[in-house]
Amino acid sequence: MSSELRQDLVSGDWIIVSTNRKDRPRQFAKIFKKRKVSAKSGCPFEDPQKNGNPEPIFVYPKGAGKNDWKIQILGNKYPALSRPVNTCAPVFKNGPYTTTEALGYQDLAITRDHHKNFSDLPLIEATQVLKGFQERYNMILKDSCISYISIFQNWGPTAGASVYHPHYQSIAIPVVPLHIKISINGSDRFYKEHKKCVYCVMIEHEIKNKRRIIYENEEAVVFTPFFSESPFEVRVLPKKHFSYFEDTPEKALKGTAAALQYALKKVTKNLNDPDYNFFIHTAPIKNKEKHTHYHWHIEIRPKFFNIAGFELGTNLEINEVDPDKAAKILRK
Amino acid sequence: MSSELRQDLVSGDWIIVSTNRKDRPRQFAKIFKKRKVSAKSGCPFEDPQKNGNPEPIFVYPKGAGKNDWKIQILGNKYPALSRPVNTCAPVFKNGPYTTTEALGYQDLAITRDHHKNFSDLPLIEATQVLKGFQERYNMILKDSCISYISIFQNWGPTAGASVYHPHYQSIAIPVVPLHIKISINGSDRFYKEHKKCVYCVMIEHEIKNKRRIIYENEEAVVFTPFFSESPFEVRVLPKKHFSYFEDTPEKALKGTAAALQYALKKVTKNLNDPDYNFFIHTAPIKNKEKHTHYHWHIEIRPKFFNIAGFELGTNLEINEVDPDKAAKILRK
Repeated sequence: MSSELRQDLVSGDWIIVSTNRKDRPRQFAKIFKKRKVSAKSGCPFEDPQKNGNPEPIFVYPKGAGKNDWKIQILGNKYPALSRPVNTCAPVFKNGPYTTTEALGYQDLAITRDHHKNFSDLPLIEATQVLKGFQERYNMILKDSCISYISIFQNWGPTAGASVYHPHYQSIAIPVVPLHIKISINGSDRFYKEHKKCVYCVMIEHEIKNKRRIIYENEEAVVFTPFFSESPFEVRVLPKKHFSYFEDTPEKALKGTAAALQYALKKVTKNLNDPDYNFFIHTAPIKNKEKHTHYHWHIEIRPKFFNIAGFELGTNLEINEVDPDKAAKILRK
Repeated sequence: MSSELRQDLVSGDWIIVSTNRKDRPRQFAKIFKKRKVSAKSGCPFEDPQKNGNPEPIFVYPKGAGKNDWKIQILGNKYPALSRPVNTCAPVFKNGPYTTTEALGYQDLAITRDHHKNFSDLPLIEATQVLKGFQERYNMILKDSCISYISIFQNWGPTAGASVYHPHYQSIAIPVVPLHIKISINGSDRFYKEHKKCVYCVMIEHEIKNKRRIIYENEEAVVFTPFFSESPFEVRVLPKKHFSYFEDTPEKALKGTAAALQYALKKVTKNLNDPDYNFFIHTAPIKNKEKHTHYHWHIEIRPKFFNIAGFELGTNLEINEVDPDKAAKILRK
């Protein structure tokens, strides 16, 4: 068939995979122009504190000083959210509308080397970036006002990065976004119906099917999802069923970091060094016992273009790159 | 307060309105650079059929020929969807996934003048653009396989327009997008709880409150929504409660076209001629009797930037422009 409507096993939403223009996958792989590398000299993250960034919350290696840190976890200099002050913000009415003060935590992980993005780091440091967010996550979840924590990287200006020097972010907020609720509810519904985790079912199918697999190791697997909302979307999942990013044991975290490094290396090499975002989807903080059906994972989205009117109006994405073709190009 | 979490009365989702950086609204208003106007000579829409576009489905004025048409409604030359052939596509399984052939209609409205965008048209022609889509909508809904029709404009390359010459689009699909279902369900829930239409409540509040109002006439109102997902978002609503775009009487349609023209003129003038999308949100085609609580409307989204990792991962938008400030700038 020429174009397909595909339904997400989790949310129930649809996408259109349009393969009418056979040359599109290869065209996409060539869209990106040479990256503009910012000079080290004016970089605000070479010496973060000298440039007005807050003191680190902690560093790796633990106890390292001004000169020998490898990773800093610190507050964002320009937060969109205010820091909580131990009491939750009251919800109030403004006319018919509901509103509350945006209290939350907005943090950064900065890696030391100006030129080493995630996939260029030694595996031990790549793992420590994830471990650093785990540690920070476990600090934040003691604040009972926080309901969800999102961890992500913006790489390149079109993906929202205002600073070139590689860095990673987390935003902790007092509400669960609707988008996350929908995924959690979908995962719950699937589990109740099939007595199986929906992500475990996908992993098993993809490994057996092989066509969309890009990489696997003992702990993690990388594939282009059948339900890919954008061209060359890539998913990285721990193979074992972990619901909570923050509780994942070090061995699985290291395997997942290795898989994420491999995936990003392939994206960079085979798509001509595109800007991209990656983000973690994990279960909400509260009512943990209710979310054991969920399976945390990482999504990578190379940034090709702005979304247009149809996608804005419907949130239904038209993807011109068949995930099978994407996997073939990415595996090279 | 510095930053606010605001909840959508319809969907229940949240946004963050971050006003920590006081200079941002005025900065946004200056982001856009001079628009690149494509020459008339190579334009594929000056003589659409000579350039390989399909024959018009109909034209305005009715019965006009090759030389005196003002508006053409015609099929898209490069559709992402295939045309239905009177039978609905069967749904089938691909491993654990659900998929179906993407059958649907993808149409264009092309206005005659190369340089006249929506707000520059004589009111009668602006109204005819909406009327043309109404007429086309009413043709398509006879196809019982179609469930939802989205009508929109992409203006400028960053908003997804590949051709400069002003044109408008509709995409008719055999499923209701989840995003639309959520709005419909939210509108239904509000109606059941309050015995009032949620959009009528907002219109009444905004007109009384005045601060976010940009324009009103007898038939329609324009304001920046309290729940604005992106900077300088603008909403245009018929004042009377019409659930279905396609059933709106000509007088209300004309008033809404005038309001949309006014809104787009202000966006163009006060935001330095930005690219933008506008789209119609209307009730789904099927089970009409169930959606009388809904109130169709138009949303305008000036296109400032790509969304980043947090927004991609959570669909929760951080808007740096307070809608009250946006209205103040747009009213000028």
